[in-house]
Amino acid sequence: MLAEIITIGDEILIGQITDTNSAFIASELNRIGVSVYQITSVQDDRSHILKALKDAESRADVVFITGGLGPTKDDITKHTLAEYFEDTLVPRPEVLEHIEELFKKYISTPISDLNRQQALIPSRAEVLHNAYGTAPGMWIRKGNKVFISMPGVPFEMKNLMTHHIIPKITVEFERPYILHRTIMTYGLGESAIAQRIETWEDELPAYIKLAYLPNLGKVRLRLTAKGTDKEHLKTSMEVEIKKLYGLIGDIISGEEENGAIEAVVASLLTKRNLTLAVAESFTGGNIAAKLTAIPGASAYFMGSIVSYATAAKIQVLGIPKELVEKYSVVSPEVAGAMAEQAKSQLQSDFAIATTGNAGPTKGDSDADVGTVYIAIASPSGVKAQKFTMGNHRTRIVQKSVHKAFEMLKAEILNF
Amino acid sequence: MLAEIITIGDEILIGQITDTNSAFIASELNRIGVSVYQITSVQDDRSHILKALKDAESRADVVFITGGLGPTKDDITKHTLAEYFEDTLVPRPEVLEHIEELFKKYISTPISDLNRQQALIPSRAEVLHNAYGTAPGMWIRKGNKVFISMPGVPFEMKNLMTHHIIPKITVEFERPYILHRTIMTYGLGESAIAQRIETWEDELPAYIKLAYLPNLGKVRLRLTAKGTDKEHLKTSMEVEIKKLYGLIGDIISGEEENGAIEAVVASLLTKRNLTLAVAESFTGGNIAAKLTAIPGASAYFMGSIVSYATAAKIQVLGIPKELVEKYSVVSPEVAGAMAEQAKSQLQSDFAIATTGNAGPTKGDSDADVGTVYIAIASPSGVKAQKFTMGNHRTRIVQKSVHKAFEMLKAEILNF
Repeated sequence: MLAEIITIGDEILIGQITDTNSAFIASELNRIGVSVYQITSVQDDRSHILKALKDAESRADVVFITGGLGPTKDDITKHTLAEYFEDTLVPRPEVLEHIEELFKKYISTPISDLNRQQALIPSRAEVLHNAYGTAPGMWIRKGNKVFISMPGVPFEMKNLMTHHIIPKITVEFERPYILHRTIMTYGLGESAIAQRIETWEDELPAYIKLAYLPNLGKVRLRLTAKGTDKEHLKTSMEVEIKKLYGLIGDIISGEEENGAIEAVVASLLTKRNLTLAVAESFTGGNIAAKLTAIPGASAYFMGSIVSYATAAKIQVLGIPKELVEKYSVVSPEVAGAMAEQAKSQLQSDFAIATTGNAGPTKGDSDADVGTVYIAIASPSGVKAQKFTMGNHRTRIVQKSVHKAFEMLKAEILNF
Repeated sequence: MLAEIITIGDEILIGQITDTNSAFIASELNRIGVSVYQITSVQDDRSHILKALKDAESRADVVFITGGLGPTKDDITKHTLAEYFEDTLVPRPEVLEHIEELFKKYISTPISDLNRQQALIPSRAEVLHNAYGTAPGMWIRKGNKVFISMPGVPFEMKNLMTHHIIPKITVEFERPYILHRTIMTYGLGESAIAQRIETWEDELPAYIKLAYLPNLGKVRLRLTAKGTDKEHLKTSMEVEIKKLYGLIGDIISGEEENGAIEAVVASLLTKRNLTLAVAESFTGGNIAAKLTAIPGASAYFMGSIVSYATAAKIQVLGIPKELVEKYSVVSPEVAGAMAEQAKSQLQSDFAIATTGNAGPTKGDSDADVGTVYIAIASPSGVKAQKFTMGNHRTRIVQKSVHKAFEMLKAEILNF
């Protein structure tokens, strides 16, 4: 079963916004066995939208459309859909009622005719209730194809996907089984790995696809199996992964767990009833932000002291001035002291500390751009490690945040 | 002049990554007067790529292609491009030399044949030097059309765009002039605004397009003028914006400055030689992370105390326990005290503090989900304001971070 995604909006094509909706929709579909064949972003333009709908219909069973459902003149998706389906717009009382309710609750200005027009829907469309906004989702059948239109506002779209569309697709469509397994490696580049597994890769069954995913200095190998016989796919995948371990077991660090590393750490801390504090220098709040993005962070996260300026490390974090003078602010000694201070001040079981130079110029130390120290304080002591993270500011921070969570994870598992 | 973007990679279509490259490319092109007609994401599949190239060629003058240039078997872009142009791959000594150099400097494993094959380039392609990676950019002419292929790794792509491709397009193509102006409003929804400016909108000249951009509870109006006569466009835009002020001047808060609000604040602080400290509760490090993402933050940013747990507010930030008990942790009193403590502990001129409940459940206070207080401490005192930010965790944080920067900006300008 194939799907396509069409995102509509000039703001995408002038680069004013990044289309994050497509990745969410694609990943949700993938999870239930629906493959996305193509993603197309088009302008708020009648003929462009019509062409995209026609092209997508020729290739896919289900076409997802986001954007262009607002109440103003530049939003033309609904009229264009009506034209495409040779349909007319008719008022839907249940949608109007919902719009009036939203206005009563959240919006201070009186409801206008333009808002009321959002309750006009193509007559053959099934309405999908948009709890968070005035533009409803629409499910429109054409022959054996289905078109699904959603607003472009990400949190409205996500709610529609999760609560209405995914459940409906699960019931109405037979889908193949898609199985992903991602093997994490370390220490070798993708071409070196490719050479070591060349014969195995060539002999993979046709229903298993391999992808190399280099990121943050490591290569992950993603195996994707697709078919109708779930048990057969699972067994066959197991066999191939066993062979892979035989070939490159020395550089495999494990299988990727579901979700990001910070979610893995968060879940470990919560399960074991442990708490965490952070002292961040060049990572500037990014470790804290990653943790607090996960609901329930208050169960284990005490706080972070973002001591960006050297003065802040001394005054707030209480790092002895002599230590900074003796070893410099970018040193294993200062990293270790930061972790210990965070742990004791914030009264936590574990603490992460980072200090380093993310560039573009040298800061309060002579350390080269990209030189960083990460320390973990645990109930059994403190460890600091040095890393060289390249010379690209954003990537130095990203890589270091990831590395810090990896180090913490290892310490928790050793505890 | 029209461009199209084709992004290649299964990882996009299974939703494993978000395509951020397209927005960057589109926005860079827009700046120099190149319109992007369509963005298409396709799989690592020969026939799919060939079809996308043909379609894009039929519509655009320049086709941008990212992804699929790695050294492994799943990366097939280069071979497919050679097939599309009926060309063969030939070794390029200058590319090989660069690959060997990168291996010597940064990569511990020996260079392999697969890496050397990255120096094979279609014979008619002009090589664009990729300083950060082994896969070079390619500039390929076909008749009066140009195809530009870049690696999918964002920071390699960005460097190629900025240093090679944009300058080259500027020299080689005549482009129209594109002018964007974005007017910020407050207090009215998009439909209410649309009603007030309906006649004006209908009478806009054909070369000026209007878009409504609702975001974080406010509506921005983007006017885009496109044409060959720069001076005429500028004058005409000025005339229309004057009319717009006449119609809705009461709800216009100004014109959008270049860049994000945190960049505006950063530049204000730097120019005026002022410093900033932060005390964050539910925003959990996001204010600090936004600030430190901007190079040069160390000039004005002292640090942030992310006091997520109530205990941390008391112990590290030094908020009197009695104050918390009397007013609760989500209160204007605690927000104000947090700002004052951050300012004094981190010895800054200004401080931002946030406290509130981002959900999903109530925390250490009875405050409803979405209730937040933001305080600004300045040399002339401290101000705290209450906001109701809805019930969506991520959006509560995003909106509050934005609001905090707006409040700080106003205080700095008043100072």
